[in-house]
Amino acid sequence: MGARRRCRQDHRQLIQTSKDIIMHRSPHALDFFLARSAFLTGKDDPRAYLERCLETIAARDPEVRAFVTLGLESARKAADESVKRYRDGKPLSAVDGMPLGVKDIMDTFDLPTQMGNPIYKDWQPRWDAACVHALRTGGAIVVGKTVTTAFAGGETNETRNPLDTRRTPGGSSSGSAASVGAGMVPVALGTQTQGSVIRPAGYCGTFGFKPTHGALTMQGVHPISLSHDHLGLIAGSLEDLWTTAHRISSVAGSPGSPGLNGAGESLPAARKPGRLLVQYTPAWDNELDAQSRASFEGLLERLRKAGVQLVTRTEHADYASLEDDFFAKLVDRSVDITAYEMLWPYQQYYAKYPDLLEKRQRERILSARDFTPAYYAELLAEKVQAKERTRRTMEGFDAIVTLSSSGPAPLGHAYTGSRTYLLFASFLQLPAFSLPLLHADGMPFGAQIIGHEGKDGDLCALARWMTASLA
Amino acid sequence: MGARRRCRQDHRQLIQTSKDIIMHRSPHALDFFLARSAFLTGKDDPRAYLERCLETIAARDPEVRAFVTLGLESARKAADESVKRYRDGKPLSAVDGMPLGVKDIMDTFDLPTQMGNPIYKDWQPRWDAACVHALRTGGAIVVGKTVTTAFAGGETNETRNPLDTRRTPGGSSSGSAASVGAGMVPVALGTQTQGSVIRPAGYCGTFGFKPTHGALTMQGVHPISLSHDHLGLIAGSLEDLWTTAHRISSVAGSPGSPGLNGAGESLPAARKPGRLLVQYTPAWDNELDAQSRASFEGLLERLRKAGVQLVTRTEHADYASLEDDFFAKLVDRSVDITAYEMLWPYQQYYAKYPDLLEKRQRERILSARDFTPAYYAELLAEKVQAKERTRRTMEGFDAIVTLSSSGPAPLGHAYTGSRTYLLFASFLQLPAFSLPLLHADGMPFGAQIIGHEGKDGDLCALARWMTASLA
Repeated sequence: MGARRRCRQDHRQLIQTSKDIIMHRSPHALDFFLARSAFLTGKDDPRAYLERCLETIAARDPEVRAFVTLGLESARKAADESVKRYRDGKPLSAVDGMPLGVKDIMDTFDLPTQMGNPIYKDWQPRWDAACVHALRTGGAIVVGKTVTTAFAGGETNETRNPLDTRRTPGGSSSGSAASVGAGMVPVALGTQTQGSVIRPAGYCGTFGFKPTHGALTMQGVHPISLSHDHLGLIAGSLEDLWTTAHRISSVAGSPGSPGLNGAGESLPAARKPGRLLVQYTPAWDNELDAQSRASFEGLLERLRKAGVQLVTRTEHADYASLEDDFFAKLVDRSVDITAYEMLWPYQQYYAKYPDLLEKRQRERILSARDFTPAYYAELLAEKVQAKERTRRTMEGFDAIVTLSSSGPAPLGHAYTGSRTYLLFASFLQLPAFSLPLLHADGMPFGAQIIGHEGKDGDLCALARWMTASLA
Repeated sequence: MGARRRCRQDHRQLIQTSKDIIMHRSPHALDFFLARSAFLTGKDDPRAYLERCLETIAARDPEVRAFVTLGLESARKAADESVKRYRDGKPLSAVDGMPLGVKDIMDTFDLPTQMGNPIYKDWQPRWDAACVHALRTGGAIVVGKTVTTAFAGGETNETRNPLDTRRTPGGSSSGSAASVGAGMVPVALGTQTQGSVIRPAGYCGTFGFKPTHGALTMQGVHPISLSHDHLGLIAGSLEDLWTTAHRISSVAGSPGSPGLNGAGESLPAARKPGRLLVQYTPAWDNELDAQSRASFEGLLERLRKAGVQLVTRTEHADYASLEDDFFAKLVDRSVDITAYEMLWPYQQYYAKYPDLLEKRQRERILSARDFTPAYYAELLAEKVQAKERTRRTMEGFDAIVTLSSSGPAPLGHAYTGSRTYLLFASFLQLPAFSLPLLHADGMPFGAQIIGHEGKDGDLCALARWMTASLA
């Protein structure tokens, strides 16, 4: 009991560093990589760590509602096995003993996968999705399935923002972000088709990572649109984001993709960016309040003071034209791609259960009913051109710096927040991080950096520098 | 009853044309497109057609064992609805009323999907695979699920060749080919990773079509290796192959692919090839018997007599070098890609149910255990180069002409036949047809034509000319 109590104190200390407060990180967010060093020295162990997570779940989940299904018995069993491995000095990987939240559109062989929709009530797959498999075989512990909006594309759900339960946690990876923001688990898996990882990560004061499209496999995850579906992660720290992503990439592979492209297992060394492009988007004028704008401008000021060159649209005509075209036209064309790719399987759900699909999903597939394969081929060709144009426009810049959302999580639960800041990285398939560096209305929200395709490790190096240097 | 009897006579007449005998097509194979014209005139109807199919199944399936699950009640209900639509002059599509066999690795919302392996005993998906959905919404009738080797990659199964039950029907789409060869259904869906459509189609005296990789979506189909998994079709006629493939391509779409690339719904007009490359492969000397060689040489002779220029490896050094490199090295590299992509989900099956995976599948994933993402990325880059080299080498040729197998179906059931002739089109992702134009040892087998990537319609035009002109 003495050891247990000491661990709990360490746990509390970890979440009370001054960094958290300046960083606007959720005060509850966990750092598994720190806990793991205590596993290695024997000061803490995976079962005790899990039990503290379960205590937090017991205390907070009745209100936050991050989990739709818990697998307590199998989680405790897995934790005990992990304890043994650490005791023997033979942990399986850097994620051994890591309690994990799994978005409920990801198949799990031992827990139902219900997609946030009654069509899949109690449905039981016979495999683990590739991402889940990669983490479990490294010793990670599936604590439960986290709440998603319906099929990761619906309007809302029962989850509350753990930092202010009157607010949305964002969506669609609502339960994943809320569980990490509440300190129920250190890491949770999510997916992003338009904004479903980066936005809720920011709203809940956590770190989010949406790698380059295809770098992490979506096999065994219910699709929306294969051209835009990205696997992503939400965590209390960059270290845990990277370690988890690297494990998935190196173990599960991703058909047709080099994965994280040779980046190593350790968090890349911090690297100060030389030049960043600043992305304001139409939301800057239309959606942001003064406090949120001031918070972002403050971040830019800190970047400038640190010697980073910032270039805005007024100083870069090609970028200004790309951004204008993107929001005026490319967004709509990308939504058409999504709608066409949604015809399967959503058209059959609509035919069989018209009342069980949400309005937006119904409208989207109806919009695509008359699209021809030739029109779709045209959209795909345009996408290739838009990506090439983006690549050229971003040449000479380390990354784009922007926001993860149009300010902090809105009050209320009917709406998971604006997508405006999320569309660029999602539709152009670029890697993005959300960093808890912004603050307004008593809530944290995210700064987003968007990198070059396939250069996820380089972007993570910038994220690390920003996290360490801008507080 | 009089009408029913007349239909049965028509049915018999259709399968007794002289073309079948010269073509070595299975004497039982059905032509749905001919039946459909009788539906349109009211001389026949989909329910009566289905009942004749079910009579054949009742008579032959106890011995042939093509089906693992039948959906008689829902099939009859669907047929009755189709009858009404034809009566009202409003068929849904060119496949309305078409009885269909569906390989049992393809998800069906109303029939279990058991993957040919006890791990999936009685497993029930909640969607139709995209290909099944596209055909059902066009009025096609799922008669049942056809036997596959385990996960479409196993060694054998219970299905027998309907033309000689002492022989294998080929695999892995064994039940699909056998059901069409036996006249149980006019069309069946299959998949090909190495040879699983083209080979059994040839062995059972039917037509087979494996489109360009990605042209027909694999969504909702259990994977082996996404880089090499192709959806394919087996049918009694080219007309039915094309109509069915076109329906899938135009309704289901295929994420990231233009599908059949703008080719029309009707069977492309026959086109005589100008120049063909002849592919012998190492199997010509090592695996073929004299009768099989003579049959293929006879086909080449008929091509020459028809004025088609044939070029062999002795006259085309670049092709000779490509073929040599392909069989000496590229095959092994492609198998490494397959093995790496198989790690998910086969590694977890192996961990949980080591006795339920077949030896070859176990060996394959074990071979990939130590492959790194960097090695996989290298393999992918080599594949791009090999495809470009193949494209250049095939320039100026309408297609490659070769065999669908190393002679007719072998006697015995422990082995589904050699893959040598199947690897080129599978690993280089090129479209291929198997045409029942060859014959040896009292059995039919297939001539294979392999086309240019994305030019499936052009290849079909050649297939139509060969089928019509070489008998």
